[in-house]
Amino acid sequence: MSAPPALEILPLLHFPLVNGPCDLGALVVACLKRNRITLRQGDVLVLAHKVVSKAEGRIVDLGAVSPSARALELAQATGKEPALLEVILSQTKRIVRQSSGVVLCENHLGIVCANAGVDRSNAGENQAVLLPQDPDRSARALCRSLEAAFQVKVGVLVADSHGRPWREGAVGLCIGLAGINPFIDYRGRRDLYCYQMQSEIECIADELCAAATLVMGQAQEGKPLALVRGALVQLDDTSSAAALLRDPARDLFR
Amino acid sequence: MSAPPALEILPLLHFPLVNGPCDLGALVVACLKRNRITLRQGDVLVLAHKVVSKAEGRIVDLGAVSPSARALELAQATGKEPALLEVILSQTKRIVRQSSGVVLCENHLGIVCANAGVDRSNAGENQAVLLPQDPDRSARALCRSLEAAFQVKVGVLVADSHGRPWREGAVGLCIGLAGINPFIDYRGRRDLYCYQMQSEIECIADELCAAATLVMGQAQEGKPLALVRGALVQLDDTSSAAALLRDPARDLFR
Repeated sequence: MSAPPALEILPLLHFPLVNGPCDLGALVVACLKRNRITLRQGDVLVLAHKVVSKAEGRIVDLGAVSPSARALELAQATGKEPALLEVILSQTKRIVRQSSGVVLCENHLGIVCANAGVDRSNAGENQAVLLPQDPDRSARALCRSLEAAFQVKVGVLVADSHGRPWREGAVGLCIGLAGINPFIDYRGRRDLYCYQMQSEIECIADELCAAATLVMGQAQEGKPLALVRGALVQLDDTSSAAALLRDPARDLFR
Repeated sequence: MSAPPALEILPLLHFPLVNGPCDLGALVVACLKRNRITLRQGDVLVLAHKVVSKAEGRIVDLGAVSPSARALELAQATGKEPALLEVILSQTKRIVRQSSGVVLCENHLGIVCANAGVDRSNAGENQAVLLPQDPDRSARALCRSLEAAFQVKVGVLVADSHGRPWREGAVGLCIGLAGINPFIDYRGRRDLYCYQMQSEIECIADELCAAATLVMGQAQEGKPLALVRGALVQLDDTSSAAALLRDPARDLFR
């Protein structure tokens, strides 16, 4: 019997430290070549959002921020730094929940996450990194660079780690996407007993980012890029991570 | 330059259809051998919860269920089948949210998910499958069977697919665990700029289940077992998926 096909997740080594605006597509193509990887049709490249943000100059010097009255008030309520809160508020459409040490926000794109995605780790001293302004646009640009360099159709995902209600610990999920359908829709397919499935839509974009996060890590030894090879993806030039955000009308946790 | 180490996810083929009580450990060991896989230290086996539930006889014939007044009332409110709701209520400690077509429950173990995990897909005609009574105990028993058969330390995870607030689509996550630490704790480690990380705990148990779900699928062609090889796991004989459930005192979405 031949071995079943495996899904592989390869961390990419030797990606340069990115600290400001640069041609991310060129850096990624060079890194793939350094890792002796030739992209194949249907490969999915996952990038930690932070490297995308930094390449787009989405870095704020906290020393240059003057906290507003609202940021000072929120600092009292949550115990977080006023300057960081001022930056968080600048990215926030709506505060979903707040508590000691926690500000859960819906950002201007509709992504619900802690601190509107603003993060001090892996930023420079007294700096904070914002989410990319439009992570789908970032993913599309990278996807075009990769497809031009390798002459195959691939997926590009921008990943971030988020906490969840009811569960401990953060997991990688998808905030920007290009090139593949983020979902597998099982509705209408027959199950093992020919029962027609009613409701199952699987978010493979989030599962791919969770899988990639397993090899990327978070601290000094972290690697910002991983390649997923062998996933059953459906190529799709029109898709985006915006489709992952639940319609507020159907959201029981607004 | 040598290639970086890859994480591999192997779907296991030819697992028999399980429809009632059986020795799951023996079936899994036989399936691994049929797939010519010899487990290695640190391998992680992920099982779809449904195969575990069925092997433990957690199947209910909906025709034999008499809906209570509460189930009938909930059927009015949600449009779901009264008999199915009666079974769901039998597994439920607390209804977290209800709406048309949706009953989000906290089950007796503290897991918050749709329908208390009761599911009609991949069950027999007019049958529903419950979650395993104690998925951590199921994982421990399997872990012991695998370690006895292969003489190495491994992880065993029981996976289910759950929807999430704010995001479309379901993802695989972990409801039962044995043999590995479910978390990587980055707190106190230094980031790229020597900033001491404050809060990052990564739930690798959920990420491993998400990754495995990518190769397992849901419908007729679904495979209930996947092997994850090459993940950076910490072996731990005392851990469980109960640790993944957030302390209600720190949960903003009770």
